[in-house]
Amino acid sequence: MNETRASDTRPVLPAGFKAAAVHAGIRARRTKMDLGLIVAPEAFAAAALFTTNRLNGAHVTVCRESLAKSKGRVRALLVNSGNANCSTGEEGLADARRVQRTLAEIVGCPAEEVLFMSTGVIGARLPVEKILDALPNLVAAAHEKGLGDFATAIMTTDLVPKVRTIAIEEKSGPAFRVTGVAKGSGMIHPNMATMLAYLLTDGPLPHDAHTALKRLADQSFHRLTVDGDTSPNDTVLLWSSRGPATSPTQEAACTSALVEVSQELCRLIAADGEGATRLVTVQVTGAPSEQAASHVARTIATSPLIKTAIHGRDPNWGRILAAAGRAGVEFDTDKARVWIGDADVYSSGKPHPENEQEAHLHLLQKHEVVIGVDLAAGSAAAEAWTCDFSADYVRINADYRS
Amino acid sequence: MNETRASDTRPVLPAGFKAAAVHAGIRARRTKMDLGLIVAPEAFAAAALFTTNRLNGAHVTVCRESLAKSKGRVRALLVNSGNANCSTGEEGLADARRVQRTLAEIVGCPAEEVLFMSTGVIGARLPVEKILDALPNLVAAAHEKGLGDFATAIMTTDLVPKVRTIAIEEKSGPAFRVTGVAKGSGMIHPNMATMLAYLLTDGPLPHDAHTALKRLADQSFHRLTVDGDTSPNDTVLLWSSRGPATSPTQEAACTSALVEVSQELCRLIAADGEGATRLVTVQVTGAPSEQAASHVARTIATSPLIKTAIHGRDPNWGRILAAAGRAGVEFDTDKARVWIGDADVYSSGKPHPENEQEAHLHLLQKHEVVIGVDLAAGSAAAEAWTCDFSADYVRINADYRS
Repeated sequence: MNETRASDTRPVLPAGFKAAAVHAGIRARRTKMDLGLIVAPEAFAAAALFTTNRLNGAHVTVCRESLAKSKGRVRALLVNSGNANCSTGEEGLADARRVQRTLAEIVGCPAEEVLFMSTGVIGARLPVEKILDALPNLVAAAHEKGLGDFATAIMTTDLVPKVRTIAIEEKSGPAFRVTGVAKGSGMIHPNMATMLAYLLTDGPLPHDAHTALKRLADQSFHRLTVDGDTSPNDTVLLWSSRGPATSPTQEAACTSALVEVSQELCRLIAADGEGATRLVTVQVTGAPSEQAASHVARTIATSPLIKTAIHGRDPNWGRILAAAGRAGVEFDTDKARVWIGDADVYSSGKPHPENEQEAHLHLLQKHEVVIGVDLAAGSAAAEAWTCDFSADYVRINADYRS
Repeated sequence: MNETRASDTRPVLPAGFKAAAVHAGIRARRTKMDLGLIVAPEAFAAAALFTTNRLNGAHVTVCRESLAKSKGRVRALLVNSGNANCSTGEEGLADARRVQRTLAEIVGCPAEEVLFMSTGVIGARLPVEKILDALPNLVAAAHEKGLGDFATAIMTTDLVPKVRTIAIEEKSGPAFRVTGVAKGSGMIHPNMATMLAYLLTDGPLPHDAHTALKRLADQSFHRLTVDGDTSPNDTVLLWSSRGPATSPTQEAACTSALVEVSQELCRLIAADGEGATRLVTVQVTGAPSEQAASHVARTIATSPLIKTAIHGRDPNWGRILAAAGRAGVEFDTDKARVWIGDADVYSSGKPHPENEQEAHLHLLQKHEVVIGVDLAAGSAAAEAWTCDFSADYVRINADYRS
């Protein structure tokens, strides 16, 4: 880090962005804001990733079309919680376009420069009139300090808002900030929640922003799991008020800050997983490739048996080794090593029962726990993030919706 | 079925097999039999499938070697519960070979004609002396009516023994029986349980028995999930006292009976899944291929969100459609149909809330529930089997081992 210095800072909007939120009446509880806006003085460059699910919320279809038409330029981002506008057919698409068009008129821009996204209950029509009624005041209220309200308005089953800012000082250019804001407490909750993440910066945008965003997601959001599902509304948006990077150093600095903020958002989402009592970081080292490491880490992070064992504070190395073993990556289990916290619990083909008490105490006493496997099959490494699996998860998700 | 007639019958050993079980002292509880034997008067043809997990219990290695050496001929099958002989290194392999050799001497056959398999706790050495001491009496006790004892001896966390017999009457040959016996209540429990399944017949063996067994597993055991994991000890053995089929009709009759028994064992295992209160059959129709149908069915059967919804008796069609949507198979969600029991809960891109009460009652009142998706993308179909996901599952698997 000769060229740049990154530091965590109080969450703020990067220069050029304003935000606001209101209770539009989509959700019943009047104290819960349910409509959030981020708006820019002109259309800025952006890139987005959407769910790979064949089932798409209306916003996925409309936002994809809009970004293609605007050539990736975005003036305003509107997000409602409480209703996913998914499985609502042609009417749902028309609803989404009507809200988009009306906001564009108020802001004064082409419709395609407005992105409107939805999260919440599936299969119900949006209360469009309530949203339209709320728009003029929402746009008027947008201000530089509106980030906290926006982060709260997009929450569904989340217990806490998720927002993080990193400030970057560069020798070769002006200082800038990268701010991430996200929601999600299960990867999929078609009737309640989905993952949305927004990365805003007044720093430079990587040149091929879409490729950079995919790479970034591979290093962050694609390594996050709460319950192994992917939602029909999942969206990640990267939006910069500065424009493309002008040097490789700048590009590297921005990319590194974006990855750091994204990984931090993943940790916040995992820690807020439904019913979670532990944030779990899964480390995989000694892999033949980063892709293989990531795959093994995600396989471990998705195993209900490992997640329940962690909930029981059980240093169950056998389940960790067995999950690594079924991930489809070649390695020799007799050379592998498994650790929990600082305790080696398995190596050279044998367990170490003498270290299990230390591992148990790590699981018992730490809120953020670490489990890891060295595959002894290369030099690549990756992390994945998840939470433990509690009886509360079952209760939350078994509740009959009515 | 012009040529053959199949009928369910009281579980029995096919002609040529004898069985017995004892309490050898591997498990602490004296009332629990923990060592089971099936023995034949001569070595009969067999084929086996073993776990794809990189972590292998000792029996997987030794049985693979033995079947290669004996050219797939088996005289005796010995199974212990209470100890998986997994992650026990070279000593574990030596233990397995010592038991195998001793049993071969008592029976009077080459060592490689004996298969010795283990299921239970991982990482602990087998109590070899206790097993050796029990062998002479076990062999002496083997008799034609020993199937029930064998089925009980191989249980670990299973609540019920799992055994099924189908009797086949052929016009073109003598009548025969196919008997399946299995254990398992989670796909993986490295410290408690694994899946073992044995298919015995006095009918003809399919010509390429190994290929037939793989195909059969694709239609049965590979469509079964309790928690989405695969174990280091999973084994399926097909063993016939008659030898190869002599006509395509015979082969078809035998294969069909084997598939039926295997699917029934899957249903028994799913119904006995840890913490389960419902047996869930997932039907997928309208798929571009059987492989695609099976993949979508398994994706649905593995989703914790669907399994918790079923536990909550919630007719949550959105979770079913979203799981199908992320399975990686091409289809148009606007043409798909979702049903629960006899109630259509989603079709033509829209939910049917008017049918949800009927679907809810199906989940509430039936022990065996059916959920299904038609993809409208072809004519292939497949089923998968699982159980609901209860807070008891978490309790069972979160319990600290000590």
